[in-house]
Amino acid sequence: MNILYFIDLLGTMVFAISGALTAFDKKLDIFGISAVAFITALGGGTLRDVLLGSTPVSWMQNLNYLFMILIGISIAILFRQAVQKLRKTFFLFDTIGIAVFTILGLQKALDFGVSPIIGIMMGMISAVFGGVIRDIVCNEIPLIFRKEIYALTCIAGGIVFILLDFWAVEQFLNILITAGFIVSFRVLAVRYHWELPLLS
Amino acid sequence: MNILYFIDLLGTMVFAISGALTAFDKKLDIFGISAVAFITALGGGTLRDVLLGSTPVSWMQNLNYLFMILIGISIAILFRQAVQKLRKTFFLFDTIGIAVFTILGLQKALDFGVSPIIGIMMGMISAVFGGVIRDIVCNEIPLIFRKEIYALTCIAGGIVFILLDFWAVEQFLNILITAGFIVSFRVLAVRYHWELPLLS
Amino acid sequence: MNILYFIDLLGTMVFAISGALTAFDKKLDIFGISAVAFITALGGGTLRDVLLGSTPVSWMQNLNYLFMILIGISIAILFRQAVQKLRKTFFLFDTIGIAVFTILGLQKALDFGVSPIIGIMMGMISAVFGGVIRDIVCNEIPLIFRKEIYALTCIAGGIVFILLDFWAVEQFLNILITAGFIVSFRVLAVRYHWELPLLS
Repeated sequence: MNILYFIDLLGTMVFAISGALTAFDKKLDIFGISAVAFITALGGGTLRDVLLGSTPVSWMQNLNYLFMILIGISIAILFRQAVQKLRKTFFLFDTIGIAVFTILGLQKALDFGVSPIIGIMMGMISAVFGGVIRDIVCNEIPLIFRKEIYALTCIAGGIVFILLDFWAVEQFLNILITAGFIVSFRVLAVRYHWELPLLS
Repeated sequence: MNILYFIDLLGTMVFAISGALTAFDKKLDIFGISAVAFITALGGGTLRDVLLGSTPVSWMQNLNYLFMILIGISIAILFRQAVQKLRKTFFLFDTIGIAVFTILGLQKALDFGVSPIIGIMMGMISAVFGGVIRDIVCNEIPLIFRKEIYALTCIAGGIVFILLDFWAVEQFLNILITAGFIVSFRVLAVRYHWELPLLS
Repeated sequence: MNILYFIDLLGTMVFAISGALTAFDKKLDIFGISAVAFITALGGGTLRDVLLGSTPVSWMQNLNYLFMILIGISIAILFRQAVQKLRKTFFLFDTIGIAVFTILGLQKALDFGVSPIIGIMMGMISAVFGGVIRDIVCNEIPLIFRKEIYALTCIAGGIVFILLDFWAVEQFLNILITAGFIVSFRVLAVRYHWELPLLS
């Protein structure tokens, strides 16, 4: 499906930009910033592929992902100030990216014959573990373990997708509904400060 | 072997509880605590499977492990105070879990045709690397790199298993002896404060 | 090629020594120091193998690597003072090791049918990610993300190799030139303090 592939590429670029922006705070050199951008953009899908046994992992088989990341890094370095001011626009792209990563990750997992529950986990991992690995590399406790219901949104989206699929909703419509659900849920969650309770 | 499988499931639950207990100190939300519990319970076996090339990794092919982890997380959250008081009981279950993880990890590795030395390493990795990855995610230097002869116990147990297997001891007896050895060794090590020297 | 294999083994030992030396500063016990030495020596190649799907990963199939690491750990512990004084000699071995790791990693990746750009990345990952994983485990932001043009050297070396290969330079000559290039580049970089700009 062309539109999904296009958003997947765009989402990869947005993730690379957000990775680079995080890395700026860590006093890294250009290589370090690029490495963090790569890890943020590719980490989730890579972990999914490695756990499933889909190797060589997907970004090795399609150079477009690397090119999008290089573009993302260039944008982050050259237009840093501007990008940081456009956080709202970025937030939207980021959220659309997460929705598509979740759906594509889920579909790929199901192609490997795992159960729907595992598929939902793999969708979530594809979408959020790039950020988790980024935080680990940058020596922080992963943000999504502490704040934001980011991962839960992906899990809820995955459940929606599986249910609609079970009820024989046509795939393209299912993708539209699921993506719409994930984006709305996340926008509302941030708008109204939905948060999971801290336990400590 | 039914009893091994049963202890494996129980050990997974105990590891999930211990992961959740560690996570409580880190001011995480419910998702974060669950993620740390999953990583603690599944990390070692996952690393073993990925290194061996046994994919999709084992917990993707048997949902019982996930259910045991969810039960473990629920217990840890609902009965936190009680669980923390039962540390001694937990220590015993944890130790039996380690013994079984070591043996099952070792056997699985040997099934992939690696040498006994590698098998012993894989047994140890199955048993202790969940905790290592948990500590890395929680932004700490892994506990077992600093304290407790946890990993050494698993390596010693693996050597016992390989030797008895070499001397044609019947498998079930071998498992009993090895598990007994690991449990005794660990109980004695904690009781008498056996520690490796710090080098610094 | 015998000479490459020999240097690969020697490089593995040198990496293990450098891992152990880093670990001394972290107040670890002997197991912890050994674990960090293993991770430093094997981490890069392991990540490459896992991403490519070359499993069981390579060091499981040839015990000589483990033996070289054990020798490296013993040297580091027994002759710690002497080794720390010989940093210049070590630096040279380390650099030769990096050159060989880059070339072997690149060749292995190409054997898996990936494109030259991915091959260059895999060469670099083989050479430097052991150190990256070491730093993550030791709870530090990876050194090569902040300082030294270590990784860039490997990337440049990979490009040289691919270009010479494209121009049909005979393989052994190509290896000599590429290794010479990497070693010279790194020696000059350290001698004249070539560094990438910090961005923050």
